[in-house]
Amino acid sequence: MNYRMLIQYDGTKYNGWQRQGNTQNTIQGRIEAVLSRMTGTVVEVHGSGRTDAGVHANGQVANFKVVTSMSPEEIQAYLNQYLPEDIAVLELAEVDERFHSRLNAKSKIYRYRIHNNNVGNVFERKYSYQVTEPLNLEKMRESAAYFLGEHDFKSFCSLAKFKKSTIRTIYEINIQKEGSMVTVDINGNGFLYNMVRIIMGTLIEVGLNKREPDDIPRILEGQNREMAGATAPAHGLTLWNVFY
Amino acid sequence: MNYRMLIQYDGTKYNGWQRQGNTQNTIQGRIEAVLSRMTGTVVEVHGSGRTDAGVHANGQVANFKVVTSMSPEEIQAYLNQYLPEDIAVLELAEVDERFHSRLNAKSKIYRYRIHNNNVGNVFERKYSYQVTEPLNLEKMRESAAYFLGEHDFKSFCSLAKFKKSTIRTIYEINIQKEGSMVTVDINGNGFLYNMVRIIMGTLIEVGLNKREPDDIPRILEGQNREMAGATAPAHGLTLWNVFY
Repeated sequence: MNYRMLIQYDGTKYNGWQRQGNTQNTIQGRIEAVLSRMTGTVVEVHGSGRTDAGVHANGQVANFKVVTSMSPEEIQAYLNQYLPEDIAVLELAEVDERFHSRLNAKSKIYRYRIHNNNVGNVFERKYSYQVTEPLNLEKMRESAAYFLGEHDFKSFCSLAKFKKSTIRTIYEINIQKEGSMVTVDINGNGFLYNMVRIIMGTLIEVGLNKREPDDIPRILEGQNREMAGATAPAHGLTLWNVFY
Repeated sequence: MNYRMLIQYDGTKYNGWQRQGNTQNTIQGRIEAVLSRMTGTVVEVHGSGRTDAGVHANGQVANFKVVTSMSPEEIQAYLNQYLPEDIAVLELAEVDERFHSRLNAKSKIYRYRIHNNNVGNVFERKYSYQVTEPLNLEKMRESAAYFLGEHDFKSFCSLAKFKKSTIRTIYEINIQKEGSMVTVDINGNGFLYNMVRIIMGTLIEVGLNKREPDDIPRILEGQNREMAGATAPAHGLTLWNVFY
């Protein structure tokens, strides 16, 4: 049977989603360890995509195949009992054998949160990036518009691999502010390595008047990572939603 | 000069607000240590009230007297530079010499947050108490109404001291739910030791149908701690606001 999970995690203590060799300190590794223990066999979990070390998820989707007499409710309860408290399986259901959480994903929303205040917020410090100087949101919105649609995002990608396509489509970038918290939601059909964090680092530089909005088309055309801004810190980023 | 501070803290790692002997691991102790280092003299910080080990604050108020040539902005910046990242001074201003954060406080709001879901929320786990069985909020609201006004809260107090008054006034109890998060705001003129947590433990037992709303008047009249419910866990509680 094939099972689909909706997973929430606080990425603070983890080396990201993807299992790496013997390292158990990844989200995927932790979930696989519990499922392998449950079934007595090696279980592989397929996520909708990787998240970097320190990045959080509100709605990561993953699937796995096991043969078991347990109900989906029992599997979910087992996982939540044995997973650490910073990983939670919010939903779990049996799905069609052909469902694959990465290959079938149509789009994703990543949320980046910036606490824009010269004094930190102690409750948000692990889930948002503090920027002490005031951000010009109008300029950030103006810049964001240049990313919409299909582009080659090679300038916004760390370690772009030769021959692999760096063309992606961004459907929407929504920038909101409530109190001191700036929330940026980026909806796209797929994201390259570090792409959201480099887009955010660049938008923040515009917001701080270190760049101008009309630099963006030039950076996109340049297809050169060095033209774009810094990679914004991981802890401000959350994989918000995956759509199928 | 007399200075008033607005302080936010994540109480997870601390033994509460109040300095205890040589223990530096209290909020008061930490702030006093930084101010003493700043001025080169012993500084005493007066909070609006104690918070227990593990209890958080969104708006604790405290005052202290020092002689310094530094501006309030400089003192605030110094504090935020040297305090640990789970304590933040949100505001700092010079006030009248007679201002005392505890003696002048007119009322306080405490907020208790309950995550009412059989699956935990990883981002809220340190700031809310998870109750897995569904709570009957209507019954909790009905019970809460009995606490309003002036009462002897001896049944809702740990370690009530002989001769000390246990009479307090509660102005408002507001119970809201958004998604799985139940937020209870309790506004009163003063609170006894563990009073909010015992009220909450009792309200939760009503919400789980282990008690009935009309038990409350009987418990209040009984003036006996053993008649009331359990003390709800500290990590769900936040000192929200202090009014002067």
